[in-house]
Amino acid sequence: MKKAGIVGGIGPASTVDYYNGIISGVRAKVNDGNYPEIIINSVNMTEMLAFVQNKEWDALADMLLQAIKSLTDAGAEFAAIASNTPHIVFEKIQKQAPLPLISIVDETCKYAHNKGCKNVVVIGTRFTMNNGLYSEAFKKYNISAAVPSETEQELIHNIIFPKLEDGIVVPEDKTKMLEIANSLIKEYRADALVLGCTELPLMIKAGDLTTLILNTTQIHIEAIVNAVL
Amino acid sequence: MKKAGIVGGIGPASTVDYYNGIISGVRAKVNDGNYPEIIINSVNMTEMLAFVQNKEWDALADMLLQAIKSLTDAGAEFAAIASNTPHIVFEKIQKQAPLPLISIVDETCKYAHNKGCKNVVVIGTRFTMNNGLYSEAFKKYNISAAVPSETEQELIHNIIFPKLEDGIVVPEDKTKMLEIANSLIKEYRADALVLGCTELPLMIKAGDLTTLILNTTQIHIEAIVNAVL
Repeated sequence: MKKAGIVGGIGPASTVDYYNGIISGVRAKVNDGNYPEIIINSVNMTEMLAFVQNKEWDALADMLLQAIKSLTDAGAEFAAIASNTPHIVFEKIQKQAPLPLISIVDETCKYAHNKGCKNVVVIGTRFTMNNGLYSEAFKKYNISAAVPSETEQELIHNIIFPKLEDGIVVPEDKTKMLEIANSLIKEYRADALVLGCTELPLMIKAGDLTTLILNTTQIHIEAIVNAVL
Repeated sequence: MKKAGIVGGIGPASTVDYYNGIISGVRAKVNDGNYPEIIINSVNMTEMLAFVQNKEWDALADMLLQAIKSLTDAGAEFAAIASNTPHIVFEKIQKQAPLPLISIVDETCKYAHNKGCKNVVVIGTRFTMNNGLYSEAFKKYNISAAVPSETEQELIHNIIFPKLEDGIVVPEDKTKMLEIANSLIKEYRADALVLGCTELPLMIKAGDLTTLILNTTQIHIEAIVNAVL
């Protein structure tokens, strides 16, 4: 088994999902009683988000590279950043990282492609939605990715921060989020909704929509489980 | 804030308690929106328990020291082992560790002393109960620590492994555990019950007993929060 390195804390609630998901995923597959070795470097999300907010992409990349180097020093054999937003600088990081990285965006695009998706809607933090993070990546697979209008982006972003990011699901927020999602899916005749923020699966569950839901956290966890094995 | 290092995975359920507890504990005290940086090295519990089972104390200490060295390499400024059982070799590890360690046993003894305890009952894994782990440490504080009989130790151990260690609380097991605890408290006229296993607080909660419960996980987390600050 390979030792996984996780850049976590963005936010802590989804880091716990990654940790539990990797352990149960690996244990279900090896079935010999062993547990995977995992190194988690949980960073200060507030510091990271300030770089994103101010579009200080070099500082953001430096912070994440530093976190990945620490994981390498601790013995990790590959790494993943347990969050969508910081993937804005993924290409820059990948070039300089001392070990292989698994991208949540690439894995989600591959997954959508394998499911035959042609037309998806992406929701996430404002940063993820308005930086073309998923739209650009999906283009390589000939999948068209729509994002909400600026007003809707504002609404979604303010549902994620600060409550959902801290793991708190407000029922009224869930209703509002599903309304926006359904209206976007209808407008774009989308065949899938991409939960492009690792906290969104805490709020939106399979069964909440009739359309396919792409849970980026779960897709990323499965790719990490496969890399461990 | 100092960067905390946690040797985790023993078991994963209590590692999540440590992670959430350190983050919420620090954030409640600093109150400026920042998150503490934490490095977790989650080890293979099955490998570790085999050393304990076979009383291979040198191999156990080496494994834990290796995990602590990885945390140091990753930038941790102090470390804690998020589990009671491996503290059997704590003194040996402490002498060789490259950074300060916070012992769950020492912190629990100090806490009990401050609460004025004189006579406690300790439950935990068979290894923790029959190696005098807590009994010896409590002696320094003139606190007498009783452990269950061999038959009761067997019962308690088999409630912890494998179900509780995987975070599963079986209601019948809880009833049995509380019966044993109450009978021991009565027999030894104990003024506190020490939950000497980091998974026990998943099963035994404040309010389940009229006697003081010493939640070693929580006591350890509070000591780590203070060290971060």
